Amino acid sequence: MIPIVCIVGKSKSGKTTLIEKLIPELKKLGYRVATVKHDTHGFEVDKEGKDSWRHKQAGAKLVMLSSPKKIALIEDVERDSKLEELREWFVKDVDIIITEGYKGSSHPKIEVSRKERHAELLCTRDDNLIAVATDQKFELGVPCFDLNDAKGLASFIEEKFLK
Amino acid sequence: MIPIVCIVGKSKSGKTTLIEKLIPELKKLGYRVATVKHDTHGFEVDKEGKDSWRHKQAGAKLVMLSSPKKIALIEDVERDSKLEELREWFVKDVDIIITEGYKGSSHPKIEVSRKERHAELLCTRDDNLIAVATDQKFELGVPCFDLNDAKGLASFIEEKFLK
Repeated sequence: MIPIVCIVGKSKSGKTTLIEKLIPELKKLGYRVATVKHDTHGFEVDKEGKDSWRHKQAGAKLVMLSSPKKIALIEDVERDSKLEELREWFVKDVDIIITEGYKGSSHPKIEVSRKERHAELLCTRDDNLIAVATDQKFELGVPCFDLNDAKGLASFIEEKFLK
Repeated sequence: MIPIVCIVGKSKSGKTTLIEKLIPELKKLGYRVATVKHDTHGFEVDKEGKDSWRHKQAGAKLVMLSSPKKIALIEDVERDSKLEELREWFVKDVDIIITEGYKGSSHPKIEVSRKERHAELLCTRDDNLIAVATDQKFELGVPCFDLNDAKGLASFIEEKFLK
């Protein structure tokens, strides 16, 4: 079963920035990474006028683009998908799934917190919080990493889920 | 097994346009449609600067975006995927897969041909050609549909693969 680790945090806490640093560190350790971005507002990925966009506009439920280097897919769904469903439906050939968001899931979470933005955390240990990446001090009984210590966090994730 | 029908044709013959007409007709008949666009040159779908784009740039092999209405996925691969693989890996909850391209596959094919562009066809019956959509006359022993007869083609596809 491919492990899932959620990077959570309040708005503008720096989740994407941390994930951007974490991915190369996990790759350096030899792991293939998948990410999931949770977008509760909806999103637009395809470009107007492209053939795949035209297929979708015409009413296709699922549109795939396939090339020798890359596959892309856009699918209509009727409800928010669970991480376990996304893993089952779409994920193969990777070692770990890192999510941005999904604070409501039961998967292990690392919270990002920046003093400049928020003094309090979103999660407690009851939320399956396993670490914090922060420039503040928290006494929670879980490891606190510096916001820039992606290398340390990657080793922590390796130790906990990949060995 | 979800049936696969390939819409093939020479360059600029009108494949996308036909597919755009075919999808709503298949939907009217009650079917859920997936499409695959074969892109041998590679493509760009995500938008620069978006969080998912940043995950991908940072080195994620697979990036997913999930919302209550839509799922999107971009994955790096090392070779061109077969249609059967795409079906197995990604497709569920649809009744038929329509492809744009894949003239080299062994799946049933409908060729689009416009006089204005090309006088000859790409396929013969040996290529598993099952119909032609055209404004020309061809004697091939397979049904010829008018370029605009998406309704007729949808019924033909229904009869052959969905009943």
